[in-house]
Parts: sequence; C-alpha cells; structure tokens
Amino acid sequence: MENKKIKMKTTQLFTATSKTIGDEIKSKSHQLLVRGGFINQEMAGIYTILPLGFKVLLKIEDTVRKEMDLIGAQEVLMPALHPKERWIQSERWDNFDGLFKLKSQWGNVEYALGPTHEEIIFPLVGKFLSSYKDLPVSVYQIQSKFRDEKRPKSGIIRGREFRMKDMYSFHENQEDLSLYYEKVKKSYLNIFKTCGIQAKITKASGGTFTKKYSHEFMAISDAGEDLIFACEKCFYAENSEISNLKENSLCPECKNKIISCKAIEIGNIFDLGQKFSKDFDIFYTDKNGDKKMPVSGCYGIGTSRLIGAIVEVNNDDKGIIWPKSVAPFQVYLIGLNKTKKETDKIYQSFLENNIEVLYDDRQDKTAGEKFADSDLIGLPFRIVVSEKTLEKQSVEFKKRKSKQTELIALKNLTERIKNEVK
Amino acid sequence: MENKKIKMKTTQLFTATSKTIGDEIKSKSHQLLVRGGFINQEMAGIYTILPLGFKVLLKIEDTVRKEMDLIGAQEVLMPALHPKERWIQSERWDNFDGLFKLKSQWGNVEYALGPTHEEIIFPLVGKFLSSYKDLPVSVYQIQSKFRDEKRPKSGIIRGREFRMKDMYSFHENQEDLSLYYEKVKKSYLNIFKTCGIQAKITKASGGTFTKKYSHEFMAISDAGEDLIFACEKCFYAENSEISNLKENSLCPECKNKIISCKAIEIGNIFDLGQKFSKDFDIFYTDKNGDKKMPVSGCYGIGTSRLIGAIVEVNNDDKGIIWPKSVAPFQVYLIGLNKTKKETDKIYQSFLENNIEVLYDDRQDKTAGEKFADSDLIGLPFRIVVSEKTLEKQSVEFKKRKSKQTELIALKNLTERIKNEVK
Repeated sequence: MENKKIKMKTTQLFTATSKTIGDEIKSKSHQLLVRGGFINQEMAGIYTILPLGFKVLLKIEDTVRKEMDLIGAQEVLMPALHPKERWIQSERWDNFDGLFKLKSQWGNVEYALGPTHEEIIFPLVGKFLSSYKDLPVSVYQIQSKFRDEKRPKSGIIRGREFRMKDMYSFHENQEDLSLYYEKVKKSYLNIFKTCGIQAKITKASGGTFTKKYSHEFMAISDAGEDLIFACEKCFYAENSEISNLKENSLCPECKNKIISCKAIEIGNIFDLGQKFSKDFDIFYTDKNGDKKMPVSGCYGIGTSRLIGAIVEVNNDDKGIIWPKSVAPFQVYLIGLNKTKKETDKIYQSFLENNIEVLYDDRQDKTAGEKFADSDLIGLPFRIVVSEKTLEKQSVEFKKRKSKQTELIALKNLTERIKNEVK
Repeated sequence: MENKKIKMKTTQLFTATSKTIGDEIKSKSHQLLVRGGFINQEMAGIYTILPLGFKVLLKIEDTVRKEMDLIGAQEVLMPALHPKERWIQSERWDNFDGLFKLKSQWGNVEYALGPTHEEIIFPLVGKFLSSYKDLPVSVYQIQSKFRDEKRPKSGIIRGREFRMKDMYSFHENQEDLSLYYEKVKKSYLNIFKTCGIQAKITKASGGTFTKKYSHEFMAISDAGEDLIFACEKCFYAENSEISNLKENSLCPECKNKIISCKAIEIGNIFDLGQKFSKDFDIFYTDKNGDKKMPVSGCYGIGTSRLIGAIVEVNNDDKGIIWPKSVAPFQVYLIGLNKTKKETDKIYQSFLENNIEVLYDDRQDKTAGEKFADSDLIGLPFRIVVSEKTLEKQSVEFKKRKSKQTELIALKNLTERIKNEVK
C-alpha cells in the first residue's frame, strides 16, 4: 500500500501523548507505544491501533506485500471463522494451543477462530489443483488472527488478537520446496532490514504444525520473551531439540562458546512436508500421469508484533527512534512563539511536495513539552521555527538519532528535506 | 491503497473459472462471482476472497479511504474481540441480533465478536476528549465484522463474516452533527458512483442502534433482499415507520404513486444522538466551562457486500461488466494460434506502462473458451491477437460493454490503451 499523503496537525489528532503510565506495563516498547499514543489496550492482550500506530502498520504491511509479490505469491483474504470439521480433519481441534472456539446460535454449527489457515488454504488450493503444470503455487493474506494466550504480555508483542501475514506454498517435490524456502528466508531478511531490524535466523522444531523442522526469525532484545542460544555464527531456538544447549556449552556446529539471550520472534517458516496434503487429500497428476501429493511450506510474519519489536530495538531514554521506512510521518514540525505565519507556510510547502509532516500546532503547550513529545513520538526529523531562527532566515533541523542541530536556510528547506526523507 | 502493478498470466493464477455451478446458488452476482473465480464459499455465509476478488476489494476500500480522508476522518484498527462488560454497559449483550459470543479458556473472560464498534470507540474517544476544542472528531476503520445471521444468503451480500468500513463522529451539538451527516451522505454517493452504482437514499428507523432516525443507501436490483417503497422522487425503507406505505398508495411527501421494489442495502448512516455518550459517560467542557455530552453519528459501508452489489447491477447474460474503477485488471489479453511472440511483446509493453493486464496465456484452451472466460471475468477491455490481425499489423479491440470490435494498429496500441484505461 502506497502511503497516503494526509494533512495532519497535532490538534487534529484525536489521541494525545501521556507522561505517565501504569506500573503494570513492563516492556519498553509497550510503555513507549502507549505513552506516544500509538496503541490503546482494551483488555488483556487486546489492542486498538491508533492513527499514528496504524500508519506504521500500513507501512510495514506495504513492505511485506511488495516482498511477497516479488516472490510470486498471490494475495487472498480467508475468513477468521473456520468450520470445526476442518480442524477435526487435521486433528488440531483438540490439540492446538489457544484455539478459540465458538458456536452459532442457528443449527449445530461450531467454528474455530483462525490462529493459522492451513485448514482453509489446503482444501482451497486442492480444489483448483490438477496437474504438475499448476505447481509451484504460493498464496498469502494479511489479516487479524486469534490465539487464546494464557498470559498475554509485552503489549502488542504477545496479544490474543494480532495482525499477521501468513503464506502457504505448494510444490511438486521436496527439492522445489527447499528452493522456495530459501527464497522466502532472503525475502524475510529484506523485510526486517527495511523495518530497522537485523534479524537472526534460529533453527527450531516444527511445533504444533509439523514434525519437520522450522526456522524462526529473531530480533535480539532484552525485552524479548524467547530464549535463544547463540555463538558468534549460529543461533538456536530454545526448543531446537539440539541437546546440551546451555550457557557456556560449545556450539555443535562451529565449537564456539554458547551464550543465551532473550529475543523477540518476529517471523517463522515451516517445512510442512505432506502433513496437510494428506489430511485434506490433495493430489496433482505428474508428468507420467501418476497421482502425487504436493509438499508444502508455511511462512508467517506478525505485522502488529513487528511494531513492538521495531520500537524495542529502536529507542533511547527519551522515546522511539523510527526508521524512515516505517515512521508514521517523516518530519515533526514545531513553531515557537510568534512564528505561526512562517510555520504554516513551511507546512503547506511540505504538503505540496508530498513530505509527510506532523505539525505540532498546539497553542497551549510550552517549547519543552513540544520537544519532549517530538522525542517520544520519534519521527526521523525535527524542524523548529523560532523568532531567533527566523532572524537568520532559517529554521533549526535535527535528526532524531543525532544530538546535533543545524540551521537550514528557509529558501533551501523543502529541497533539503525532500532529499533527507528519500 | 494505490493499485499494485503486478504481472499476471492466467496460468499463474491458482484459481480457475467454472462453467457450471450448484443449483442452490440463486442470485446472479453469487453465480458470476463463484464461476469467475472471485470468491469461494467455505461454509454457509463464510467466504474466501480469491486473488481476482481481492483486487476488486482493495480498489473499493481504496476508494472508501480516499473519501473518508477528504472529510477529515482518522483511520484506526479496533479489535474484533470485545469485552463482554462493554456490551453489558450499552445494554446490547442480550439484545443485539446475531451477536457472536465466546469465552477464553483462561479466567472468567467473555467476548463479543464485533458486528459494530460503538462499545470500543466511545470509551476510546472519551479517554482523550477534554475540551470543545477537541471536537468535532471523526474516526473510522476498515475491517472484518461478524454477525450470526439466521439465514446467510446471496453469497457475499449477506454473510456471517464480512468486510466493513465503519466510522463514528463526535460533535458539540446536533447542528454540527447534522452538517457532518450531510457531508457523509455526499461522500457516500461519490463512493457508490465511483463503484458503478447509482445509489438511492431511503429513510429508515434507527434499528438496534438508536431510537433516532437513519438513512440507508440502496442499490436498486431485483436480487436485493430489502423491500423499499419509492415514487419518482422519494425512497423509503420498509421499516421507515411511515404508515400506509404499500404498492399504489400515495407518497406522503410528493403525493406521487408509490411502487415497491427489492433492493440491496450497501451503506447506512445513523444519528446516534447521545445514546452511547450516556452509556459510557463521555463528556467535554464547553466554552463556558460546563460539562457537556457530545452527540454522535455512525456510518457504515459493507465493502465486501459492495462487490456483490456491483456485480448485481453490472452484468449481462455472458458475465460480469466491471466498472473501470474497481476492475481487478483493465485489459484481458488473448493471443490465438501462433502469435505468442507478438502477444508477449504487447504484454511486456503494457506492464512497462503500468497498464493492468491479465494475459490469457493458456495453451490448452480454444479461442471460444478464452472468449467466454473474458466475458465471464468481465474486464473493461479485451484485446485479441491473431495471425489474421497481425497480417494487418494490428490487434482486435473490444469494450466489454459494447458488441463492436475495432482493429488497432500495433504501433498505436499502448498509447491508445493508456488513454482508454484513464
């Protein structure tokens, strides 16, 4: 999704920042996202994504879409309500951790509320699949998912309702799946890099999904809830089923000393083998006219969780430091004292040049309060217009991640900022 | 959302058209959307939106977003899981038709699955609302909604899970609400017009939401499930609570003869008064420092239902006739016999010029089958490349809604099509 060029002044936003926050909010990203007015908790594990947070989400999901399209995946939208019968068929109705279940008041109809969509996509692809010529095929969606977590925590990092991109691929054989699986790995690393996270890939077991292997993508952070074991080169998930992994043991692959660190899982990919092809009787006809079962992979990224992970690794003691690629706006524009006329002009010029700007036009706030909110909200660039800078026909410019300020001449301002936000 | 410029050949689509369909599918739009490969029914009232349908949905929702932004509304994403307590507070837990309810397996937590979001948005806006200076404010989202319909029918026109844009506005007084309410009316008519529907506004009662009035936006169609009464000028919903409305009675406003017709409701707007402000104790301080309650409106458009309504009023006996604004692609490109090299060139040229093209590159289908699929899928323009047209250095061009074909010289083709799709 291309970013929408929207006018926005702070006084028009229906949300506001807050200085304090409840003691029960432990993780840094959760604190900053609530204080900055990005998310609002409705109940345990359930959030509204507010206008500033929603702009971040759109940019993340746009990034994901572009990468999925590049690897030939087709976008669909599957339902959240799943027929119970399908989950019986895959033997997950009674075995899937945190599956929400509900009933219709009409007839004897029961639903699972989708935490993942193998039960929908496999019969669907099977319906249209006939020949080896139809393979490989890859299908994805971006959508709200549901999981009845025992202890929702860390804000939007582990919620009961969350946004997710899930993709499923179907192949003639294991070799073709492996090729695509490696493509997706690269694609995921691109996505996380664009979002300001250097993700590490860990090996893990297949979990509820499959007895085969899986890989997890980890953002290394103290606020994470996953324990991983790492040496200089290799990374292992806690559940990787490689024995003897603990602090100071030796890496089974490169013999370096292992350390443990907590991390945030931001993506995972699974080799599903023929598990669901068998469950749902899916076949194709191969070159010789024989009936064969496709092998499959599944690939997830938690897009709302990613908001939390980005903040967790991009902040300082004053607030968030958004990477340009996912910042809700690029420029935080402040006009001090009697500079409204000049600041309005700058705002207009930015809008006309498609520079995403949040204009702090509040009349009842001090300069200090505006600076604090600018740091808290964490847009990449701050521009301050004051009587003092205007005497020099200029404005003050500061990057969020730098301490230095710089004067920029008014006449060069728009062109300079157009270059900065590129 | 800007449309994505994606390469697409028919052989790459994992879906396919079908010639026949079950007898149980009655409505024309449902038949065409299933046969064309736009939607797939998973169970009663529950659908997957397939790649072609998803492109239509994105275009509809993009149209909606642009119009909502123009009237100053801010986009958020609220959860589908709602705390039971909020629905108790609004006295709708036991009274709302078709409310899905579910329980967490942890603690004593119950949820409603959101069919509408007053219970979330009112406490949320109330949390940030302080002064009259904060008003008016308007907030919207586009999202999946849930309603336990007794008899889901007409495909995606009445489902148990559906996409919806819902917006809520908050005002100092009734006058300000009325001004905004009229703005939204115009905005809605723009949206429907863009989508190829001349919507009629009918007056109706407030329903479950409020004892105040409401307006419904109707697409006039035999396949609709709503009965409306109309004369030449005025339109009334069946439940408008205006007495004596029946076939051949006189219109209470302009005294013309009334006829009845079935119609599809594609949008509705409600004057909520202070109903939910009272339920959730929402106040602002007015100019004199007095505490006041805001008045509100709510405004819905069923975006997935709209796909059905558009098809219902834009089709012929061969298939769908998509309006350009929401067509999944603009051009259906067919290459017959030994024209692959030339047709590939045209396809490349279209891609480079951002012309949305679906290239029917199937080798195992007859010309007749390709023509039939082109008509069924219903893209605005069809281009046929054959050995015969190539002898004249040209291709055959046809508009879906016209019977006439035309030869266009190869050298002019891309420029001509760029103009056609504008």
